[in-house]
Amino acid sequence: MTEFELIARYFTRPVSERQGVGDDCALIDVGERTLAITTDLLSEGVHFFPDVDPASLGHKALAVNLSDLAAAGAQPRCFLLSVSLPRADPAWLDAFARGMLELADRERCELVGGDTTRAPRVAGQAGPTTICITAIGEVDRASVRGRGGARAGDDLWVSGQLGDAALAVAHGMGRVRLDPAASRACRQRLEWPQPRVALGLALRGLVSAAIDVSDGLLGDLGHLVERSGVGAAVRAQDVPRSDLLQSIEPELQRRCVLAGGDDYELLFTASPDHRAAIEAAGRACCVAITRIGMMTADPAIRLDGERGIDAKLHGFDHFAGAPEA
Amino acid sequence: MTEFELIARYFTRPVSERQGVGDDCALIDVGERTLAITTDLLSEGVHFFPDVDPASLGHKALAVNLSDLAAAGAQPRCFLLSVSLPRADPAWLDAFARGMLELADRERCELVGGDTTRAPRVAGQAGPTTICITAIGEVDRASVRGRGGARAGDDLWVSGQLGDAALAVAHGMGRVRLDPAASRACRQRLEWPQPRVALGLALRGLVSAAIDVSDGLLGDLGHLVERSGVGAAVRAQDVPRSDLLQSIEPELQRRCVLAGGDDYELLFTASPDHRAAIEAAGRACCVAITRIGMMTADPAIRLDGERGIDAKLHGFDHFAGAPEA
Repeated sequence: MTEFELIARYFTRPVSERQGVGDDCALIDVGERTLAITTDLLSEGVHFFPDVDPASLGHKALAVNLSDLAAAGAQPRCFLLSVSLPRADPAWLDAFARGMLELADRERCELVGGDTTRAPRVAGQAGPTTICITAIGEVDRASVRGRGGARAGDDLWVSGQLGDAALAVAHGMGRVRLDPAASRACRQRLEWPQPRVALGLALRGLVSAAIDVSDGLLGDLGHLVERSGVGAAVRAQDVPRSDLLQSIEPELQRRCVLAGGDDYELLFTASPDHRAAIEAAGRACCVAITRIGMMTADPAIRLDGERGIDAKLHGFDHFAGAPEA
Repeated sequence: MTEFELIARYFTRPVSERQGVGDDCALIDVGERTLAITTDLLSEGVHFFPDVDPASLGHKALAVNLSDLAAAGAQPRCFLLSVSLPRADPAWLDAFARGMLELADRERCELVGGDTTRAPRVAGQAGPTTICITAIGEVDRASVRGRGGARAGDDLWVSGQLGDAALAVAHGMGRVRLDPAASRACRQRLEWPQPRVALGLALRGLVSAAIDVSDGLLGDLGHLVERSGVGAAVRAQDVPRSDLLQSIEPELQRRCVLAGGDDYELLFTASPDHRAAIEAAGRACCVAITRIGMMTADPAIRLDGERGIDAKLHGFDHFAGAPEA
């Protein structure tokens, strides 16, 4: 059973008109306003290594939630933080809080509450650090978007560049050798993702569906086409990537770009009528945005004209194992 | 460093007028409405045993959050669930979801989103289960209450009966011997706490401060008096307890009632002018409520006239160790 089947089977229920489940954010109506709410849980040994830089961990734990708000086109408002820690280490906590609160201040998202507990020991060893953040933003009710609004004929767009974070993981696992400067550059992308909050806001009213790329381009595109009941034709060569990534061997490059995960860029669809406005939004936010394909009536993902995606290029699934497994 | 000092030092920041931190719930203004938001993280080995009944765990994980909403006088609205699980066990998940969703349905609190991840293995062993819930309710802005509104001369009240959950823990640890029927009765109180949502709503406009009793009566009263800048005189004999608890030896009985924790009853203060209305609210909700003392200008807690509380009677603190340690 995969993670997504698990969720679907036990925790998905019919929800009322006032709120919804299953997209990057839940949406709830509060009087005349609409809130977007998202939660992410990060576990040591799954999402980060025990020796992670605590400042980058604090940053990333909040960033992945703000990325979900960005996909929903929400203005971040506040967040709650729950942590389970093996010990109360002041130096670690200080760095963790600094990394998190610098991003919070920059995106004007206030820490308003939370919970702190000691991680249980397991087999005599210090228990794992677990971090759970819930972030809340406000959306414009008239331009609410989710994963389900893509239509055949829409352009398919992605922000920034994909694959560098996955390259950092491949380097960490010894699957590729990078020189120190290259290693630092892609680790920066892995550890300090920049949520596309401003772009998400600038795209309000222009896009038909959006999702953030956290599990790999094709995996997240799969969620979007499934929810929308359409397909997509993707031009792999057009998916934007860094000069560094272009310098590595083609097969690993392809896997990093198409199935890497941890990119936290926005993948979105829009009518071709909005091309000029979308490009202007990208320029205004100083974020590169690139058209990488189009949506199709045939409900499948085609890659360079070929139907049927290599199973290895599917997104990361916690209960089915990593794509490399 | 205690858990509360940790939180204060690293994660408490000045927050804007629109939202607040440090009480059972954060309060945020959304247009004309005000939301109460709370989050709790439960870890295997700290908050529950590995062999816990999954249905009761599902119930309790949501109940502790609804208890925070009850303290704030909020009407539950929806919640998000994040779980980190060592494996995808359908029977376990089915029971866990059932326990949780029965309570959610009863309190009309919809599950609208969440996150599911695999718990990391530690030292070759299955990693611990971790559950993080964020619950959201709506409060009446005119009758917002927190921990800081108690005034000298107010009555001090508590709902239900205290100490049975702690007695179940004492029995589980072999510190007391109970017959099977008594053991079942107090385990029920430990594993299936009933959040006082209806009472919390019925008390709107009547109480000056409220908190839920999760860390033990005196520990939570300590938070309330500290935030309010007043003291309290408590009559230990008046603290309500079950017939079962009254049958055990006085010293353990006293510790269970005053410092037990896991009660999830409401502790609140109110002007003596509201006595009749408060008693009517309790009757309307079929919940016993009892006056156990009064608030004082002297900023200390007195127990039966004695100033200075036995350190052993302080509340549970994850980073300072349990009171029994």
